[in-house]
Amino acid sequence: MDDFIKLDDILHSALVEDIGAGDLTTAAIVEPGKRGEAVLLARENLLLAGMVVFRRVFELLSHDVAIETFFEDGQNVPAGEKVCLLKGPVDVILKGERTALNFLQRMSGIATVTQKYVREVNDKAVRVVDTRKTAPGLRMLDKYAVTVGGGHNHRSGLYDGILIKDNHIMAAGSITRAIVLARGKSPHTIKVEVEVEDLAGAEEAVKAGADIILLDNMSPAAMAEAVHLINARALVEASGGITLDNIHEIARTGVDIISVGALTHSPRAADFSLELKPS
Amino acid sequence: MDDFIKLDDILHSALVEDIGAGDLTTAAIVEPGKRGEAVLLARENLLLAGMVVFRRVFELLSHDVAIETFFEDGQNVPAGEKVCLLKGPVDVILKGERTALNFLQRMSGIATVTQKYVREVNDKAVRVVDTRKTAPGLRMLDKYAVTVGGGHNHRSGLYDGILIKDNHIMAAGSITRAIVLARGKSPHTIKVEVEVEDLAGAEEAVKAGADIILLDNMSPAAMAEAVHLINARALVEASGGITLDNIHEIARTGVDIISVGALTHSPRAADFSLELKPS
Amino acid sequence: MDDFIKLDDILHSALVEDIGAGDLTTAAIVEPGKRGEAVLLARENLLLAGMVVFRRVFELLSHDVAIETFFEDGQNVPAGEKVCLLKGPVDVILKGERTALNFLQRMSGIATVTQKYVREVNDKAVRVVDTRKTAPGLRMLDKYAVTVGGGHNHRSGLYDGILIKDNHIMAAGSITRAIVLARGKSPHTIKVEVEVEDLAGAEEAVKAGADIILLDNMSPAAMAEAVHLINARALVEASGGITLDNIHEIARTGVDIISVGALTHSPRAADFSLELKPS
Amino acid sequence: MDDFIKLDDILHSALVEDIGAGDLTTAAIVEPGKRGEAVLLARENLLLAGMVVFRRVFELLSHDVAIETFFEDGQNVPAGEKVCLLKGPVDVILKGERTALNFLQRMSGIATVTQKYVREVNDKAVRVVDTRKTAPGLRMLDKYAVTVGGGHNHRSGLYDGILIKDNHIMAAGSITRAIVLARGKSPHTIKVEVEVEDLAGAEEAVKAGADIILLDNMSPAAMAEAVHLINARALVEASGGITLDNIHEIARTGVDIISVGALTHSPRAADFSLELKPS
Amino acid sequence: MDDFIKLDDILHSALVEDIGAGDLTTAAIVEPGKRGEAVLLARENLLLAGMVVFRRVFELLSHDVAIETFFEDGQNVPAGEKVCLLKGPVDVILKGERTALNFLQRMSGIATVTQKYVREVNDKAVRVVDTRKTAPGLRMLDKYAVTVGGGHNHRSGLYDGILIKDNHIMAAGSITRAIVLARGKSPHTIKVEVEVEDLAGAEEAVKAGADIILLDNMSPAAMAEAVHLINARALVEASGGITLDNIHEIARTGVDIISVGALTHSPRAADFSLELKPS
Amino acid sequence: MDDFIKLDDILHSALVEDIGAGDLTTAAIVEPGKRGEAVLLARENLLLAGMVVFRRVFELLSHDVAIETFFEDGQNVPAGEKVCLLKGPVDVILKGERTALNFLQRMSGIATVTQKYVREVNDKAVRVVDTRKTAPGLRMLDKYAVTVGGGHNHRSGLYDGILIKDNHIMAAGSITRAIVLARGKSPHTIKVEVEVEDLAGAEEAVKAGADIILLDNMSPAAMAEAVHLINARALVEASGGITLDNIHEIARTGVDIISVGALTHSPRAADFSLELKPS
Repeated sequence: MDDFIKLDDILHSALVEDIGAGDLTTAAIVEPGKRGEAVLLARENLLLAGMVVFRRVFELLSHDVAIETFFEDGQNVPAGEKVCLLKGPVDVILKGERTALNFLQRMSGIATVTQKYVREVNDKAVRVVDTRKTAPGLRMLDKYAVTVGGGHNHRSGLYDGILIKDNHIMAAGSITRAIVLARGKSPHTIKVEVEVEDLAGAEEAVKAGADIILLDNMSPAAMAEAVHLINARALVEASGGITLDNIHEIARTGVDIISVGALTHSPRAADFSLELKPS
Repeated sequence: MDDFIKLDDILHSALVEDIGAGDLTTAAIVEPGKRGEAVLLARENLLLAGMVVFRRVFELLSHDVAIETFFEDGQNVPAGEKVCLLKGPVDVILKGERTALNFLQRMSGIATVTQKYVREVNDKAVRVVDTRKTAPGLRMLDKYAVTVGGGHNHRSGLYDGILIKDNHIMAAGSITRAIVLARGKSPHTIKVEVEVEDLAGAEEAVKAGADIILLDNMSPAAMAEAVHLINARALVEASGGITLDNIHEIARTGVDIISVGALTHSPRAADFSLELKPS
Repeated sequence: MDDFIKLDDILHSALVEDIGAGDLTTAAIVEPGKRGEAVLLARENLLLAGMVVFRRVFELLSHDVAIETFFEDGQNVPAGEKVCLLKGPVDVILKGERTALNFLQRMSGIATVTQKYVREVNDKAVRVVDTRKTAPGLRMLDKYAVTVGGGHNHRSGLYDGILIKDNHIMAAGSITRAIVLARGKSPHTIKVEVEVEDLAGAEEAVKAGADIILLDNMSPAAMAEAVHLINARALVEASGGITLDNIHEIARTGVDIISVGALTHSPRAADFSLELKPS
Repeated sequence: MDDFIKLDDILHSALVEDIGAGDLTTAAIVEPGKRGEAVLLARENLLLAGMVVFRRVFELLSHDVAIETFFEDGQNVPAGEKVCLLKGPVDVILKGERTALNFLQRMSGIATVTQKYVREVNDKAVRVVDTRKTAPGLRMLDKYAVTVGGGHNHRSGLYDGILIKDNHIMAAGSITRAIVLARGKSPHTIKVEVEVEDLAGAEEAVKAGADIILLDNMSPAAMAEAVHLINARALVEASGGITLDNIHEIARTGVDIISVGALTHSPRAADFSLELKPS
Repeated sequence: MDDFIKLDDILHSALVEDIGAGDLTTAAIVEPGKRGEAVLLARENLLLAGMVVFRRVFELLSHDVAIETFFEDGQNVPAGEKVCLLKGPVDVILKGERTALNFLQRMSGIATVTQKYVREVNDKAVRVVDTRKTAPGLRMLDKYAVTVGGGHNHRSGLYDGILIKDNHIMAAGSITRAIVLARGKSPHTIKVEVEVEDLAGAEEAVKAGADIILLDNMSPAAMAEAVHLINARALVEASGGITLDNIHEIARTGVDIISVGALTHSPRAADFSLELKPS
Repeated sequence: MDDFIKLDDILHSALVEDIGAGDLTTAAIVEPGKRGEAVLLARENLLLAGMVVFRRVFELLSHDVAIETFFEDGQNVPAGEKVCLLKGPVDVILKGERTALNFLQRMSGIATVTQKYVREVNDKAVRVVDTRKTAPGLRMLDKYAVTVGGGHNHRSGLYDGILIKDNHIMAAGSITRAIVLARGKSPHTIKVEVEVEDLAGAEEAVKAGADIILLDNMSPAAMAEAVHLINARALVEASGGITLDNIHEIARTGVDIISVGALTHSPRAADFSLELKPS
């Protein structure tokens, strides 16, 4: 995230999407070259994520917008606080505003909700991780925001992790055969994870050499039993229907990892406003 | 949305994001060429939006996946119902699954919540419209989903509508001057909309020839007064803090348009699952 | 035009088109690093448009070309005058020359001819506007050049304006039904324009609530009658077969807008030359 | 031009430019799936060029538009004649119309004017060739249109031909040195062309081994003398200020090639119309 | 490799690189539409890899080239044998020939040399794997070719594997600290590999929980000792200076994985020819 | 190569290919902002080529890496010598290392082997030239590296040179007819080269006006005879099966040009290492 190799492509598309051939309102009203200041305010308590992206949006529009930050990614901002101060050409600030805010609101929204999940289980040695249920095109940013909230990342895509699901097991014929095939053909650098639905599946997966066992939609009681059975021979991940209400109970089963789709598929946007200062 | 000029670029990026150099799990386990069927299920009551996109994801991967649909965009699907049936190469179905679902879940989520807002006011002659608070890169799809839910679209970007906000008024010096500048320099095909915060502003805007007056964060009582004052000399739009709880009260003020940012900045993903049938 | 979000993509393609894998002549002959000066001359009287683009071409090639300008966009340059002075690496100046000139010649050609049309009618309160008959890929620049010449822009594309033509009316069944459909489904921010061929059509369009009536290929007499009939209930646009010879007569009919395809579909390139100074 | 490797990128950009997120008018008015026919008419006498491009525009929008052609590239079409008949979805035809026409009008305009130049000199063994003064991004199409008109192409860009101009000669110190450098460093597959302004320059260029001598802005008398002097030791190209009025006189000087910038920098668009048939 | 999501972008770039604005020779000489047949011959013994790519090159140029294959990827082809037969438009076959062959020659070259390495050690339970020393832009294809030759893939890039090298250890301060940091921040789905240079390093790495130990440029004797010391507590990879001459000796040390940069950084192109049949 | 119009696209793709969504190892271990130095060493005697590319890779990642060079392109570097010193953020250096090295190793490998071929014939007035047998996507760089090694370039692609091969002759019916067609339709700036297999072919080609005759896979004796026969009426190129062992013998036949596919289709990567200095 501190290089811009992939980020700039995402931001460029977003700016083209919003600005297109030009900002009609600003072009008609704001004198070119007129300079001003604007302040970014948090309008609710939130965990800040995305300042690199916010800043980069304006850099792509102009080399002439200076941003002084009062909070950085990973800091909790109380409602009403100033997040940063922008100084530069008024037309550039107005043109970039909505695009920059759309990124910041989504990313801070993800970080804020992730922090809530993580705080529910911070008395346990368990990782809260994301899934691939992200906004298409924004996965890199969604997953970064999860880490700002204290969560960890699961695989980034189909290309950098092996997760054998029920459909794969059905295609292979058995858990054991699916694991053997995956192990045999995949890079030695990547662990083999398999999704199971019951204790028998967990036992078979461990015996076949799975590195990680995903317990799919099992009850807390069954999960605890599975953890006991697996007995540290593999990492154990809980998945399916995890909410703020039940995550602590699930963490108490002793699983190593809890994956939560809602972190990225349904985040509520964090609320900010950008206000031009009277000149 | 029925041509693919811009859509294919969005889908291509999303597929590259998820599949990258290949689906490790499927490549190792599923025999190439093996054919199968999968069913898409709604796991909650939802308003379907995005079937064109869902279908197109698989078309971009292969010419060999046939999709039989039981519901189309704009239909309410009860929990547990089959939405469609896919037949084709198992590896293609598994590779495209998550990307296709990520689009469908977001779009159906937006349509479903939009429908709720629209139903709250369907006894009034008022439009529920979206904003530019969309997921970067997905605005075209987000806005399409709003229309599936019975909402209407506001402008698509800075390039196809004029909305004079407080910052523009401050830069211009007055509401009147901002409107005159915008009218003078902009295409005659586009209406001039101006955001006001009180009755005086509304009156000035009408006199200066605004086509649309946006009442920003005003109380329902003040809105009603503004509608009375404007007296059909301009369209009236209510904006700011609209929720399912207060939208009906706002509609009763007589405004023509109500814009709701939450439709697209914080939609909850609709819940689907894709299940391979045993062969 | 003062941000480069879309412009840089256009310029990059143009530079790749001309330079490809390299400038064979310059690479063989001009010593790398050798610095020099070149002067840009107007070889005929012209209205200058495109200096931002001209300058940006060289910025994309090198950070080391300085350009001192003697005229800016919107100024009339007499034949023989110096437009600007370039200082920098000779090889960069030679590599960028043709691409930079191709843009400048087209844009200044459009501005120059637009100015002629505008001057014909500058005793009338009428806008001269462009059409979508632009060079594919260059519409943003073509339309900008029209504004430099004192013209105004019509819609930018199919996405930011509604223009109901004869084909749409035929598909809808009547002018009234076409207008009702367009009004009902389109953003409230965009006006509804309809093309009519006679007075009856104009009357029907006004009654159905059209915001703009386009009089297509009507005689000046019929146009004057239509303006009288419409009586300021809608904006009136004249279109079809407008030339420098007849535009004043058409303006006298009282129409609000006159659209001229020739501004952008058949502009004559303005004549410039770039001459390296002896060192 | 019969493969689409580069063409499709150009057309894709043009379609995105015009259609953007959608055709508002057509989407609101034309029923999806409704089929119809449209006829393309020549509205003036013209030489047709660009039918491959015209057809491809619709192919990129839909696999469902059939085009029956009555004329092909290189044929003269009298005013009022039908060029082709389109059958397919009405909304697709309307969406693609302007983009397809913009290409066809420019290309046919270039072919038509080229044919006029060529006919002026078709009693001489001389080539009429184009220059690099083309619309940025459209050079491949502009140059193709020149060949349809009976012209030939000069180099496509800086990468596929060597043309030593006055600026290069100044940088090198002399014509001879410039030619020696160019010959020494460039691919053996490409000829060395040098621009000269007088007989002395022509003589020096021939002696230094130039393959082609460009006579820049010389009088017909001087050109004739140069041709006599060069005496077939190199190809001779005339350039600068060529018009329909003087090209025949220049051809009579015996030059081998005449380059005409106006073919592509200032073509008048050929006039077509596309008319939907009543259903 | 059986979907074309990323492949088509690579092939499109390669075709543009070779064909550019057109194949001058073929366009001038070969009649459009003329059909013919061509045969692809192996000119030396080789292991075939890349037929999907070879075929796809022609599909991108035309829907009209049929290819009948006599060998598929992974089969050894004796010198002089026919690999496949192409039928279709002659101009398309000639235009695509060099691009298609350039891919096939490189990929078959990589597969052929990989097979030699693999055969040297096929009496041992050891994987021969590739590295990131690939041709920029072609990694996906280079790595696929390695698997065709019987090799396995190491990580694809920096994003899908952890490999702690000497530089990282220096930055972290110690092997242990580097491993702890990597384990703590990285996805649980990816193994931690660490490069060591001696036995002490290997011991420290195992104790710190490394999943894979890379023995960098160690002597076979030292490697054997390291394997003994590690004692299956981690996978062991040998790297550095591996050749066909020494790979068997290294395999005998008991390492699990041997990585060979030369497979992809210096492959010799396999020799093919494509010959048009007389018609 | 000193502008970055096309180069940056190639480097961007290569960086995305290697870094993807991020460098897991470095991100976990190296403190952001930590600065350091690294030295680039030649690990064998080599001819350096690609320093512009090496440097540009780091510029695209950060504006903060300074590179001090001790050798430049075209200089022979002895094994063990320092090539350059990098100073900047450690994480950026590590992220860019492999991509930068992959370019440099390939390019220096090509330059080094080219130099060997050139030195074999430097007592003769003959050019050693490359072919189109390059790594797809890297042709511009491959061909540049050949020139660094003292070689010359043949055509860059199908678009900038005419080379009539056996397949074209077969399609045309005869050598003469192929040459006439090519001459008639192609730009006058490009020479016509034709491949022949025997003396009769060479004689026919000369008579038909070929500019260059390529002798394909002929014996040295036959080549000498052909050179004698052609007698400077055309350039003569030898091609097919050229190696370091036979190139001198071929040069002695008196041909003007010798093309060697192996320069670019099978270069051995030059060996470098990049070592971070202890801080």
